[in-house]
Amino acid sequence: MAMAGYWGFLVLLVSALLVGFLSVIFSLIWVLHYREGLGWDGSSLQFNWHPVLMVTGFIFVQGIAIIVYRLPWTWKCSKLLMKSIHAGLNTVAAILAITSLVAVFENRNAQHIPHLYSLHGWVGLIAVIFYVLQLLVGILIFLLPWAPLSLRAFLMPIHVYSGLLIFGTAIVTTLMGVTEKLVFALRTPPYSSFPPEGVFANTLGLLILVFGALIFWIVSRPQWKRPKEPNSTRLQPNGDTIEGAGVSMTTNYGNTMDKSDSELNNEAAARKRNLALDEAGLRSTM
Amino acid sequence: MAMAGYWGFLVLLVSALLVGFLSVIFSLIWVLHYREGLGWDGSSLQFNWHPVLMVTGFIFVQGIAIIVYRLPWTWKCSKLLMKSIHAGLNTVAAILAITSLVAVFENRNAQHIPHLYSLHGWVGLIAVIFYVLQLLVGILIFLLPWAPLSLRAFLMPIHVYSGLLIFGTAIVTTLMGVTEKLVFALRTPPYSSFPPEGVFANTLGLLILVFGALIFWIVSRPQWKRPKEPNSTRLQPNGDTIEGAGVSMTTNYGNTMDKSDSELNNEAAARKRNLALDEAGLRSTM
Repeated sequence: MAMAGYWGFLVLLVSALLVGFLSVIFSLIWVLHYREGLGWDGSSLQFNWHPVLMVTGFIFVQGIAIIVYRLPWTWKCSKLLMKSIHAGLNTVAAILAITSLVAVFENRNAQHIPHLYSLHGWVGLIAVIFYVLQLLVGILIFLLPWAPLSLRAFLMPIHVYSGLLIFGTAIVTTLMGVTEKLVFALRTPPYSSFPPEGVFANTLGLLILVFGALIFWIVSRPQWKRPKEPNSTRLQPNGDTIEGAGVSMTTNYGNTMDKSDSELNNEAAARKRNLALDEAGLRSTM
Repeated sequence: MAMAGYWGFLVLLVSALLVGFLSVIFSLIWVLHYREGLGWDGSSLQFNWHPVLMVTGFIFVQGIAIIVYRLPWTWKCSKLLMKSIHAGLNTVAAILAITSLVAVFENRNAQHIPHLYSLHGWVGLIAVIFYVLQLLVGILIFLLPWAPLSLRAFLMPIHVYSGLLIFGTAIVTTLMGVTEKLVFALRTPPYSSFPPEGVFANTLGLLILVFGALIFWIVSRPQWKRPKEPNSTRLQPNGDTIEGAGVSMTTNYGNTMDKSDSELNNEAAARKRNLALDEAGLRSTM
């Protein structure tokens, strides 16, 4: 990576960390200063753990977990180490998100409020369930060494897509949650009179949106992708064949679903397959 | 594209069209059956145009505009024609979104309700402003023939990223809007008692989310990208150099920001630059 690109990356990374950290601080100030504080007694003090733990785990930690492979100073670390950090951060995020759900479920049981009637509840529950499934599939298929290479290559584009979709859905859910809480809670003075709590929590919503935008920018720049192993040949992503460096390369990046098994029956096809797996960053832990 | 890939694309496209169309129908049923209907008299009948026009324009039409380059039967059409369709659909979406804003502003003026106090209002206004800016910049830089090639190559990755970010933000805003409306409107019986309108509008929210997920999947598959012109050489996206087919290729795909102008001072660099512009699909209208 050129130095200009490196500094550009650092500025964006520090911005993402600052905005993400500020979101967590804002969620804490919201419940400690504008609401009643924190507790674990079934009251609204327990409910207040819900936004704090969701913003911390399901937004901030999940966002950082998404971009750990992009940090240039980790490109010399083994892929297994980076996968473990990726899985570890996502596990921390999942534990925080589930604890956050326990907080709100116990609070609603104690207050005799029905569960899961709102769009926030529906979408949020779906997001957490898919997040846990994604984590389990990720550990079983990509972290542990037993899954067949073809399965890894097939699942990698789906893993990347569903990870980003779940992160986006977590942002959707959080902003619906902020909206729902403010409309319910701000009555005198009402939300529509621009009370300080409304303006403050709206700002929290904007911070979360900016954090998401930064994470999506960082993760979608091709020049910040972790490089392949030095002696591996690069593939190009459009389903075409390039003759170069004495190697016939076929792109399996993202479209391995279209490859028939019969294609893998000779040595050349096996080499293509290995290249595709390397593209998915899978070989170094085999 | 292999036939299996073609049918897979068709299934996803038809699913996206169905789910998007169903979202529009649901928004109409919501206001016609569960609310008071439609009108343009400052009353809540006028407000009701807001969700219908937003779901139609800012969600459905914008989503389709994003994937028009992916339709395989358009790959033989000129790039200028496809750009015109892309810009035309986005213009229709912008007109519907602005009309939708006029509906809600006039309704709030008539009812003496303050404007733009909620997170939905803040994020939605930002999204519409950025959408109109994106449309104007898109027409000026990419559709009209005057912009320098280097500017087009520099702006293309930003155009793609900000287009997808605005679409995602439109979905966030719409789901916040559904939440806000239901919490305000459903009092007797309350939202928490699972009234039919609540369940129905929640389902609308889920449909919009599924529509967005389908659009993001379709647009992010490399094998469904519009192919380059037949005689152009392909680039690969990782900032590396491949020697192949007698052409030295440098990837400018997505990282043209890092290229210094001095690099463009010799013939080889100029060829690279043309290839980068071709990658961005810009040459055929020059």
